[in-house]
Amino acid sequence: MPRLTALPEFNTLKALSAQLAQGNIAQMLATDNHRVADFTMAAAGLSLDFSKQLLNREVVAALLKLGVQAQLKQRAAALLSGKILNTTENRPALHSLLRTPKDAVVNQPTVLADKFQQVIATRAHMQYWAEAVNNKQHRGFTGEAITDVVSIGTGGSDLGPRLVTEALQPFCGDIACHYVANVDPADLQDTLAGLNPATTLFIINSKSFRTQETLSNALGARQWMQGAGASAADLSKHFLATTTNLPAAAEFGIAADNCLPLWDWVGGRYSVWSAVGLSCAIAVGWDHFQQFLDGAAAMDEHFASADIGANMPMILSLLEIWNGNFLGATNHVVLPYDQHLHRLPDFLQQLTMESNGKQVDQCGEALDYHTGPVLWGSAGTMGQHSFHQLLHQGTLACPVDFILPLTSHTDKPEQHRMLVANCLAQSRALMVGRSVEDAHSTLLARGTADPEATRLAPHLAMPGNRPNNMITMDSLTPATLGALLALFEHRTFCSGQLWGINPFDQWGVELGKEIGTDILAELSGDTHDPDLDASSAQLITRWRALQRDTESIDD
Amino acid sequence: MPRLTALPEFNTLKALSAQLAQGNIAQMLATDNHRVADFTMAAAGLSLDFSKQLLNREVVAALLKLGVQAQLKQRAAALLSGKILNTTENRPALHSLLRTPKDAVVNQPTVLADKFQQVIATRAHMQYWAEAVNNKQHRGFTGEAITDVVSIGTGGSDLGPRLVTEALQPFCGDIACHYVANVDPADLQDTLAGLNPATTLFIINSKSFRTQETLSNALGARQWMQGAGASAADLSKHFLATTTNLPAAAEFGIAADNCLPLWDWVGGRYSVWSAVGLSCAIAVGWDHFQQFLDGAAAMDEHFASADIGANMPMILSLLEIWNGNFLGATNHVVLPYDQHLHRLPDFLQQLTMESNGKQVDQCGEALDYHTGPVLWGSAGTMGQHSFHQLLHQGTLACPVDFILPLTSHTDKPEQHRMLVANCLAQSRALMVGRSVEDAHSTLLARGTADPEATRLAPHLAMPGNRPNNMITMDSLTPATLGALLALFEHRTFCSGQLWGINPFDQWGVELGKEIGTDILAELSGDTHDPDLDASSAQLITRWRALQRDTESIDD
Repeated sequence: MPRLTALPEFNTLKALSAQLAQGNIAQMLATDNHRVADFTMAAAGLSLDFSKQLLNREVVAALLKLGVQAQLKQRAAALLSGKILNTTENRPALHSLLRTPKDAVVNQPTVLADKFQQVIATRAHMQYWAEAVNNKQHRGFTGEAITDVVSIGTGGSDLGPRLVTEALQPFCGDIACHYVANVDPADLQDTLAGLNPATTLFIINSKSFRTQETLSNALGARQWMQGAGASAADLSKHFLATTTNLPAAAEFGIAADNCLPLWDWVGGRYSVWSAVGLSCAIAVGWDHFQQFLDGAAAMDEHFASADIGANMPMILSLLEIWNGNFLGATNHVVLPYDQHLHRLPDFLQQLTMESNGKQVDQCGEALDYHTGPVLWGSAGTMGQHSFHQLLHQGTLACPVDFILPLTSHTDKPEQHRMLVANCLAQSRALMVGRSVEDAHSTLLARGTADPEATRLAPHLAMPGNRPNNMITMDSLTPATLGALLALFEHRTFCSGQLWGINPFDQWGVELGKEIGTDILAELSGDTHDPDLDASSAQLITRWRALQRDTESIDD
Repeated sequence: MPRLTALPEFNTLKALSAQLAQGNIAQMLATDNHRVADFTMAAAGLSLDFSKQLLNREVVAALLKLGVQAQLKQRAAALLSGKILNTTENRPALHSLLRTPKDAVVNQPTVLADKFQQVIATRAHMQYWAEAVNNKQHRGFTGEAITDVVSIGTGGSDLGPRLVTEALQPFCGDIACHYVANVDPADLQDTLAGLNPATTLFIINSKSFRTQETLSNALGARQWMQGAGASAADLSKHFLATTTNLPAAAEFGIAADNCLPLWDWVGGRYSVWSAVGLSCAIAVGWDHFQQFLDGAAAMDEHFASADIGANMPMILSLLEIWNGNFLGATNHVVLPYDQHLHRLPDFLQQLTMESNGKQVDQCGEALDYHTGPVLWGSAGTMGQHSFHQLLHQGTLACPVDFILPLTSHTDKPEQHRMLVANCLAQSRALMVGRSVEDAHSTLLARGTADPEATRLAPHLAMPGNRPNNMITMDSLTPATLGALLALFEHRTFCSGQLWGINPFDQWGVELGKEIGTDILAELSGDTHDPDLDASSAQLITRWRALQRDTESIDD
């Protein structure tokens, strides 16, 4: 894979970006009657309007050429057909297989047939549990039906299921699903505070069954259950696991029948479609979960078949490259105008920053350009009363993706109309800005006297010309949510390909874990590692003194 | 006020930053036996260790001179004594007065005496309500005691109280407090779903009593209450308001006795110490809320009295300037290693980005340097399985503030020890990094065969030398939380002074509101504004078509 700067179209785009830096989005929009139609596309129930990006048709043409030169279509085909694209770990990345429709098996390459059989079997296993819990067939150790599910996991075993359960709240049934992820014992303690052990089901999500956070919380959950009178044999009524480590799960007390598999060809941040999503399937019921898978599969199909110029994930990725590597953006903001999507930025942070926050290429050579940006955001309208000040008037231009379901599941259409109006208004305000002259007239019209209006006008003025995408859907449903997450997955993949990196590994988290193990050993004993830096050593000394104080108070 | 680049020490620091870009934090730490002691300070129950910043003693000395040249001490005194520092709005910024101890009145300048009397009276009013609700003296329209409080507000009327209530969860009593902020009707609907109108008390926080989000949610709450049988006269048992607009509150149905005042000399993002914090005072009880105020007052006292070199908010601000304007950071990451502080990044986003996301100076002149960075983060250890990959190996260096309470309120010290170990490990890993050679030996030691170890080593390598602060406290209590929030308030103020901007206004949010009003009118009617851009117009057309479809289905 050639790197980004070695693609022939790179220099063309560099030259265009120098011109476009002076361009005006609002003007380009006003003078080209076909811009909106040509810069809008639909796929899998989603619509993307990128006409408020800082680019013109020449840039779009060059970006599409760049995508051809980076072989995006071939890379997509390689991904979806299970080629080993995760080269540092020698694995394919086959999360798309997790949502492939059951009857699509004939279209799969033979090499995938075995994996697909496992996926189908796991789906059946998930459906069994989703129905057994919802139908109250499955019961706890006192014979009562399950009322609450606590899914324990962290990273990809947490962010995806947590997002999906909240996003699909209008589709949820009677079972309440809770999520525990932090090693801080307060997380589990707070969650269990309102629950009844006899009616609580835990799902332990850990590929290795060794993740520190997950295992320590699982042990706490088991202790809580046993403290309520559950015997060792009763545990199988209250614990499921999603893991590849059956012996460790068995030793913990989880029967093999209660274990659902994971595979090394599914990364944590792509695992919500696997058994890691079981808590969601219980929350929304199997049919809705199947619709969620189908929505993602529809996006996979679009990703595989649409030409680059009509391919929504590819276009979004090329826009990310344009904003980051040509216009200098270091941040990417995601603003879902839907309260139920308030966790989407957290989910996308992992998806994009763990995938593309890298500085060497596939071959391990250092890169001399920026890769993945920082991604952050919040549910609109919350940010309008917070960080939007910086989006509008700060010295950093942060491209924004607005995400807007056009209808509401509530019975308050008037209030939802305000939400829609706010979303459109923010998108427009970022683009049009306000000149000092306009600010001055506005102040005069409001009745501000003139010397004061002149003094204040520069403070009200806004540069505008800040790029944004508008991603809309008629309604937030299981299907459109599935399509939305798959859209961002594929966008992230394409950007990784354009940057020449492997978006499927995460070696950068290793060192922290190793040092953590060493420091935990030191905190648990009373030795001092002479190689430890003085700052860490000072804090360990202080921590130990505090522990002694606490212990002596306890005595 | 001279601007940052006009301060004499600016060029010295520019030269030093060129040298320091090649410096190595770990090496500086290893070769200077006094670095940790000299780069550590304590105030108001908090400790700051900035020895893992990319700087040396020469830089620190130059930064302190910069602080002197920017007159930080004088500016702090001006702030605390009520000078009109919010020049565009002609107001002082007197949030510190909200926590000034009752018996400190003699030390206040006379000009503040009247304001202080109002503060003391409001505190008494807050205490009355906190006790009346907790003691079950105050009862709902059916005579039942209050079990739940729903605080409705947005921005500063939401983020602060929400954070404080969750952060002090171990100190909370029986009354559950909930927060509703989004204009999306799903926010209110989800919150009310589990509540009983007869035992629910609403607090409507809106200075103007006109904020769209807050008023529409308040109307929804009143409708819900009336739907449950509450008469107009009953509303006073279920609605309090924090507002300056008594007539509007009265018209809504809230008696004057139920209204607590706000003042124009308290900005929304600094208002948690005012009656806007009433929900917190109810949640934790008055004594704890008083301790929260006292903790902040202790930080105010430190801020007012400590020399620049020993002044924690001033040092943190100078470090922000060093990282942003000299080392090129565009982001600032905050990682509280405490689950109860998981909303701190949201709160700090408003505090810092709404304060310092500006591009003109106090006089309205355009600035030619970067001002406030983007702030984001999450509770540790959650981010370790998400965006830490980018922190360690991405192409953007993001300075980090770790925040760590050294003890836990839970009864699981072993698990809390893991949390502490993880925090220390992340701080150290960011600093030390890992060379390709070291990665190679590590892989060999793990049993990876050599050609493979050589191939993988560059992927495991990490640059290190990424700066971070460690802010610790013995325990997260009302007092240390108060000190922590006041610390960040004053840091934000100092940075605003160094950048030459007014951190107390937020003119950048105006245009979006104005356009929002216009678009809402258009959505509510059937006209088309010919001046609207084609992208927004297209979306309005689509939204209207969807509404018609929905209505015809309803018919």
